[in-house]
Amino acid sequence: MAAKRKLTQPSREVIFGFHPVVEALNAGRRKIQSVIVDRDTLSERQAEAIQLAQNQGIAWNRQTPEQIRSACGSDQHQGIGALVSPLPNDSVEAVVADAAANAKDPLLVLLDGIVDPTNLGAIVRTAHCAGADAVVVPKDRAVGPTPVVSKVSAGALEHTRLCRVTNLAGTIQWLKKKSFWVAGLAMEGEQSLFDADLKGPLALVIGGEGRGLRRLVQEHCDFLLSIPLCGRVDSLNASAAAAVVLYEAFRQRRTG
Amino acid sequence: MAAKRKLTQPSREVIFGFHPVVEALNAGRRKIQSVIVDRDTLSERQAEAIQLAQNQGIAWNRQTPEQIRSACGSDQHQGIGALVSPLPNDSVEAVVADAAANAKDPLLVLLDGIVDPTNLGAIVRTAHCAGADAVVVPKDRAVGPTPVVSKVSAGALEHTRLCRVTNLAGTIQWLKKKSFWVAGLAMEGEQSLFDADLKGPLALVIGGEGRGLRRLVQEHCDFLLSIPLCGRVDSLNASAAAAVVLYEAFRQRRTG
Repeated sequence: MAAKRKLTQPSREVIFGFHPVVEALNAGRRKIQSVIVDRDTLSERQAEAIQLAQNQGIAWNRQTPEQIRSACGSDQHQGIGALVSPLPNDSVEAVVADAAANAKDPLLVLLDGIVDPTNLGAIVRTAHCAGADAVVVPKDRAVGPTPVVSKVSAGALEHTRLCRVTNLAGTIQWLKKKSFWVAGLAMEGEQSLFDADLKGPLALVIGGEGRGLRRLVQEHCDFLLSIPLCGRVDSLNASAAAAVVLYEAFRQRRTG
Repeated sequence: MAAKRKLTQPSREVIFGFHPVVEALNAGRRKIQSVIVDRDTLSERQAEAIQLAQNQGIAWNRQTPEQIRSACGSDQHQGIGALVSPLPNDSVEAVVADAAANAKDPLLVLLDGIVDPTNLGAIVRTAHCAGADAVVVPKDRAVGPTPVVSKVSAGALEHTRLCRVTNLAGTIQWLKKKSFWVAGLAMEGEQSLFDADLKGPLALVIGGEGRGLRRLVQEHCDFLLSIPLCGRVDSLNASAAAAVVLYEAFRQRRTG
């Protein structure tokens, strides 16, 4: 009920950039009030987005570059934005139920406190490309699905189920009851990623930037994996680590 | 000879951030004139860097936050910087000769026009961690080994051989004569990364942001690989793609 919505939850936001706007139109998961384009330029890609909007009966209008920049709160708008409702918050239970209904072994990515929208956007893009069913993030002390995240994800966020949970350790416990293997990625992990079995229902838990997994989260994992490192630097960045582990899971899980 | 140095090549630069400064001191590949630290704060990590500098007889001094920010040209300095000579430009020939001398199958990463220092830094970090022998970039229309790249790489740049070449296609032809397999990463690649043999002397060629490999570079590759994509987005970002392909090479090439 709208009256009970928390005050911190905006009812409207402005997504920006070609891919976020087009993928929001394609995905149909947001209510799109209007599309705005730069009145001084009209590129092929802007025209493509306008055509998509028109086909759905969505209004569009031209604005000055200054108006667009102000509405988007960013210089990265590429001359296009859209006034939209926030993405729905998916539930982990629904994601797991849908995978079961499709007779698919689910693959979830749990992020323990990513605070940089650039990292979240990069991980969401890779998770989507590697076929993950959802990305799970804590509600507190972590970045959520903002327009910047959609931009960095090249619009992948518009198609990705993102579950914001109150208690990540609680979610892990619930997943284990549902027969998931829960694998944490940690420098101190004794098992090399490349020796692990990543088939079946799987949740990959990846820590925040520079900090890794919190102790409580780590303790709830079934096992800890490490990515082998050859050089003098003691870790990969969060989004590179996510790419390596997600595609190793993809490699092992692919059929044929 | 110094008199023949191109005017565009600075003889001094300021690297900044804890990891770049400490790894420059550890690696010993730059002449380090002095270390500068924020006079208002002294963290354990700053003290560690100062100790390293003192052990090498390198001067250090305290500056105001404003002086440090101005010297570094960045807010990302973490209260520490160093006035240093540029990194040496390694030659591909020397890298290949050294690998032969060590009876090691070389692994090179060739970047065809990465212009964003954040992407280059992320790729250098991953290449170093995955055991690549060198990263090869064109001299023109591509970002070089700047202080920002060192910062983003978490100091991995200080240990990584970076070869700047005039003509990337020419380098590819030379590598093929030296019995390298040259694999380009391209969306239109017919072979899945996970079906390819990535053992032996190998050069992985990765395209610039949003643009992929140039046609001439692509034509010189022995084969083109693609990373399988599940979703609605048609590519990974350059640094995620590099992480996936570098660690698949690592996985196949590891012994035991």
